[in-house]
Amino acid sequence: MALIVQKYGGTSVANPERIKNVAERVTKRIREGNQVIAVLSAMAGETNRLIALAQEIQDRPDPRELDVLMATGEQATIALFAMAAGGLGFHAESFLGFQVPIRTDSSHTKARITEIPCDRLRSALSSGRIPVVAGFQGVTETGAITTLGRGGSDTTAVAVAAAVGADLCEIYTDVDGVYTTDPNVCSDARKLDRITYEEMMEMASLGAKVLEIRSVEIAMLYSVPLHVRSSFSDSEGTYVVREDETMEKILVSGVTYSRNEARITITKVPDRPGIAAAIFKPISDANISVDMIIQNVREGGITDMTFTVPRNDYEQALEIVQGVATSIGAEKVFGQKDIAKVSIVGAGMRTHAGVASRMFDILSRHGINILMISTSEIKVSCVIDEKYTELAVRALHEGFGLDKAAA
Amino acid sequence: MALIVQKYGGTSVANPERIKNVAERVTKRIREGNQVIAVLSAMAGETNRLIALAQEIQDRPDPRELDVLMATGEQATIALFAMAAGGLGFHAESFLGFQVPIRTDSSHTKARITEIPCDRLRSALSSGRIPVVAGFQGVTETGAITTLGRGGSDTTAVAVAAAVGADLCEIYTDVDGVYTTDPNVCSDARKLDRITYEEMMEMASLGAKVLEIRSVEIAMLYSVPLHVRSSFSDSEGTYVVREDETMEKILVSGVTYSRNEARITITKVPDRPGIAAAIFKPISDANISVDMIIQNVREGGITDMTFTVPRNDYEQALEIVQGVATSIGAEKVFGQKDIAKVSIVGAGMRTHAGVASRMFDILSRHGINILMISTSEIKVSCVIDEKYTELAVRALHEGFGLDKAAA
Repeated sequence: MALIVQKYGGTSVANPERIKNVAERVTKRIREGNQVIAVLSAMAGETNRLIALAQEIQDRPDPRELDVLMATGEQATIALFAMAAGGLGFHAESFLGFQVPIRTDSSHTKARITEIPCDRLRSALSSGRIPVVAGFQGVTETGAITTLGRGGSDTTAVAVAAAVGADLCEIYTDVDGVYTTDPNVCSDARKLDRITYEEMMEMASLGAKVLEIRSVEIAMLYSVPLHVRSSFSDSEGTYVVREDETMEKILVSGVTYSRNEARITITKVPDRPGIAAAIFKPISDANISVDMIIQNVREGGITDMTFTVPRNDYEQALEIVQGVATSIGAEKVFGQKDIAKVSIVGAGMRTHAGVASRMFDILSRHGINILMISTSEIKVSCVIDEKYTELAVRALHEGFGLDKAAA
Repeated sequence: MALIVQKYGGTSVANPERIKNVAERVTKRIREGNQVIAVLSAMAGETNRLIALAQEIQDRPDPRELDVLMATGEQATIALFAMAAGGLGFHAESFLGFQVPIRTDSSHTKARITEIPCDRLRSALSSGRIPVVAGFQGVTETGAITTLGRGGSDTTAVAVAAAVGADLCEIYTDVDGVYTTDPNVCSDARKLDRITYEEMMEMASLGAKVLEIRSVEIAMLYSVPLHVRSSFSDSEGTYVVREDETMEKILVSGVTYSRNEARITITKVPDRPGIAAAIFKPISDANISVDMIIQNVREGGITDMTFTVPRNDYEQALEIVQGVATSIGAEKVFGQKDIAKVSIVGAGMRTHAGVASRMFDILSRHGINILMISTSEIKVSCVIDEKYTELAVRALHEGFGLDKAAA
């Protein structure tokens, strides 16, 4: 008998009919002899409906109250699921964030889970009830409702799985697994059978939308095996697991891309200690996160700096930097919004040299100019002109042999 | 400075625009120097939408989970209200049932409030925040969500007012007060300026839909003055207050009617001790509430019994009684669904004789036959053929001078 946490996303519970379908999936696993805890998202569209209501009232709704409003979405789904399970002769018990409790800090709309006591979940399981937990929501020490931000239900599922020591956490979604790249861009994209936590984290942070990065972090930290799969079929999806000796070391597992960034360049910055802080402190104070930073050394104690920011924050960041540039005596500031970041990800890079240069070569052979480069242990990212995005993705996917099934 | 609890019903908070309007009303009272606690219902239509979702899944949804589902309605409204108050420069703080907490027993879908600790409400008030409380919902000792049944938000408001010792509880609704009778039936109906708790309770239980009876009970028990008024105008509504010496004793304050009953008659019942229990125990066991009971003594140790039940329970009650009639050797059982109950209510009846006979006389002068009669200290009810309902209401309204403004 295995203890499994199953998470179903918004499209999987989009209406009463689909919620009944989810109840059948959950109870099937129980009839097969497993214990299951279900974690559910809000019905697809519900979160947007609630945000629209809030925005009819305030442009920037109070975060505490936005959380109270948003939390109703998952609350409705778990109640409906429990009814559907009841209709199949099973006894499910709904758990809101405050009832589990899913304890979080008090950062409304993007709270972080601090603790999940699981006496009540265990007690439900041992009484033969199916605990169904509202995803995305938690409760602070003082009893205020919080939400966990984008992809929060994934985080809830993985954190619950870690807390109860589940054997497996299944993430049911509307795609059938993690792909070597976006199938909408590259028709040769293949579903991966396995991927490591580290690779999945890079993929998630680089724009693959299957799993929220925080949930992968928690899974890795607590060694919770994940299985990302479709709620509309029975076929196996992608397992996200710890890297081990027996795993085949794949050089490149996937190609990702992101169009959510913009870059800003400051030229002829006086190159003296503290200058980077002078530039980036006011940006960080404005709560804008900087991704890549590149500094070219010129002669004569001056330097050029280029960095990327989220495209939504571009105008604000540009304005801040223009102010700073004047005060530090830099030459000028300019930026570009129509850029994209393409990346290759693979745990095998750790032990193989030459992957980055092979990437540069592939791009160059397709006439794609590289504007910026950044690397980590298991990924290489290049910023390019946005118009080359699809071409670059397809070229890298083919160039690293991802279109061919693994040996 | 007064402490006021204001309750706004579903039509008053039906959309974001109206919620903003409610926020203006609440904050106006605060600018006038009062402290206000707001209690809100779900947006009009929301409760029905949620019930429809539940019924797509189960014909008779699990009550515990139905409560979890239903409670989302008020949760959304209070969050939106808090945002609207924020937009007006006020700091409101939403309180769900479990956060106040509104403690209840565990009778899901019709829970009763057992206790309202109000430290948190007081603390919000003393910090200058506006507490906005979700109506209709509570929490059990073990942390399960409950709802209070029909009119539950009125009950929440009055119970909160009692708990915090409010000076006044204002019930904002879509009518502008309590009327001498239903204006849809009798165009001469007048708004009452004042009415006693006892009269209001009789009016509520007899079919006037302005206030739920339980909320009036609690108001009377804790001497909370109520003011029933419209959220769409500024005019004064109706005060519901304790009867005192200085109040003018009005003989008849209102005429009410109900079409929700049916009657059942058993003839030639052997008149022996325990016979009433033999008949009514199985009805009560089926959770059917009996209203009026009339027993006519015949000669020879036999009797006829007639009683009324809610019309929805008529068929079931008839079946039960037919079984009992056979076993106790009664003659036969028959019933009638097309009946109505018309009533006159007035605290002045306590000290004035002859009110009942004047009612009978008025009905008889209009050719209306009385099928059953029941009286209490401050009301007289007659069951008549349903087709005479409007005629009876208008005749009594005029006959007792309710169409004329009070002196």
